[in-house]
Amino acid sequence: MAIQDRAIKKRRAILEAAGAIFDEHGYDPATIAMVLERAKVTKGALYFHFPSKEALAQGVLDEQVPFGTVPPQSCRLQEVIDMTFMVAHGLQTNALLRGSVRLTVDQTTPPGVDHSGPFRQWPERLLVLMEQAREQGELLPTVESRATVDLLVGAFAGIQVMSRALTNREDLADRISALWTHILPAIAVPSLLLRLETNAERAERVVASLDLTES
Amino acid sequence: MAIQDRAIKKRRAILEAAGAIFDEHGYDPATIAMVLERAKVTKGALYFHFPSKEALAQGVLDEQVPFGTVPPQSCRLQEVIDMTFMVAHGLQTNALLRGSVRLTVDQTTPPGVDHSGPFRQWPERLLVLMEQAREQGELLPTVESRATVDLLVGAFAGIQVMSRALTNREDLADRISALWTHILPAIAVPSLLLRLETNAERAERVVASLDLTES
Repeated sequence: MAIQDRAIKKRRAILEAAGAIFDEHGYDPATIAMVLERAKVTKGALYFHFPSKEALAQGVLDEQVPFGTVPPQSCRLQEVIDMTFMVAHGLQTNALLRGSVRLTVDQTTPPGVDHSGPFRQWPERLLVLMEQAREQGELLPTVESRATVDLLVGAFAGIQVMSRALTNREDLADRISALWTHILPAIAVPSLLLRLETNAERAERVVASLDLTES
Repeated sequence: MAIQDRAIKKRRAILEAAGAIFDEHGYDPATIAMVLERAKVTKGALYFHFPSKEALAQGVLDEQVPFGTVPPQSCRLQEVIDMTFMVAHGLQTNALLRGSVRLTVDQTTPPGVDHSGPFRQWPERLLVLMEQAREQGELLPTVESRATVDLLVGAFAGIQVMSRALTNREDLADRISALWTHILPAIAVPSLLLRLETNAERAERVVASLDLTES
């Protein structure tokens, strides 16, 4: 393995350990020592990539939006739906994503860290897909894309908090399905409503398709 | 003032101070000493009402759902909408409610405190109104009330977190309006859609009506 590849792998291992620690403890009680122990790396290796706890938190936050990556769909609304299922799956299986989302949702602001960044980045990312959906005639003419994407991001944030509190996120995919069945009639043209897939089986297929892509 | 009235007032003052402290610091860093200083009460008075920090947190959590009280409406869906505006207003103006909501949303579980209680209590409360709405013919026959109320509570929780992170909750009423315009077409009969009031002006009128009731 090239030196650069090893550095990338080590950086990722540190981020995953930090995500797990932030998820379990929150920002303030988390320490660099906890991350070192979890990641099994030296202090020097960690500080080479992240010079401070703030930098580590920022690194964890910056990894959040890439978790929404899904196979492209000709129907852009389906792609947006798939993204929500992918992130829901990630929250159940990946501690880095959980830690990142906790930093975003928690009220305590790490000083010098833009912890609300994902609340701006997700809408921007979704806005691109929504505008493509509009060009393709998928949206009702009354849709204001900005309001819709802001609503999606805010609602998703709270639904996952509630699902975590009540079932440790076991019912998250079903709750996201319910979000879609409630808002699609207000945004999608009627002819699409029959074709869009919003149930838990779709969620499983999306996850399986990405697992295949990665292997 | 009767002794009982004074005790009730003192208990409320302690809860309001505790809510503010939990809102500002979160559960773990908050201390009884901070609450004593804020409430300007003696240790004895506080412990008379709340024997521990856990009891104080539970007291703050138990006050959350009453903040949804609004004047009854013949249209039950309008009453549900009004409740969301009332809670949004409360979050902007009342530290006890903010502290209660922070305890509910925060991931750190106070030991021995049912911090996810409001995630069960709100849906139960809304379910009663939704079933009355159904009896009055306000709901589409496809509506599953349980899924709808769970969605409302989860979405509201996240929307207020996002609004707090981005604008210190200044745009919360507008974001709640957007929630309603997105989900009402999936739950209300079409003839109601024109009559239901979901904009920020309605929010202001609801708040004003309760201010009058209280005075």
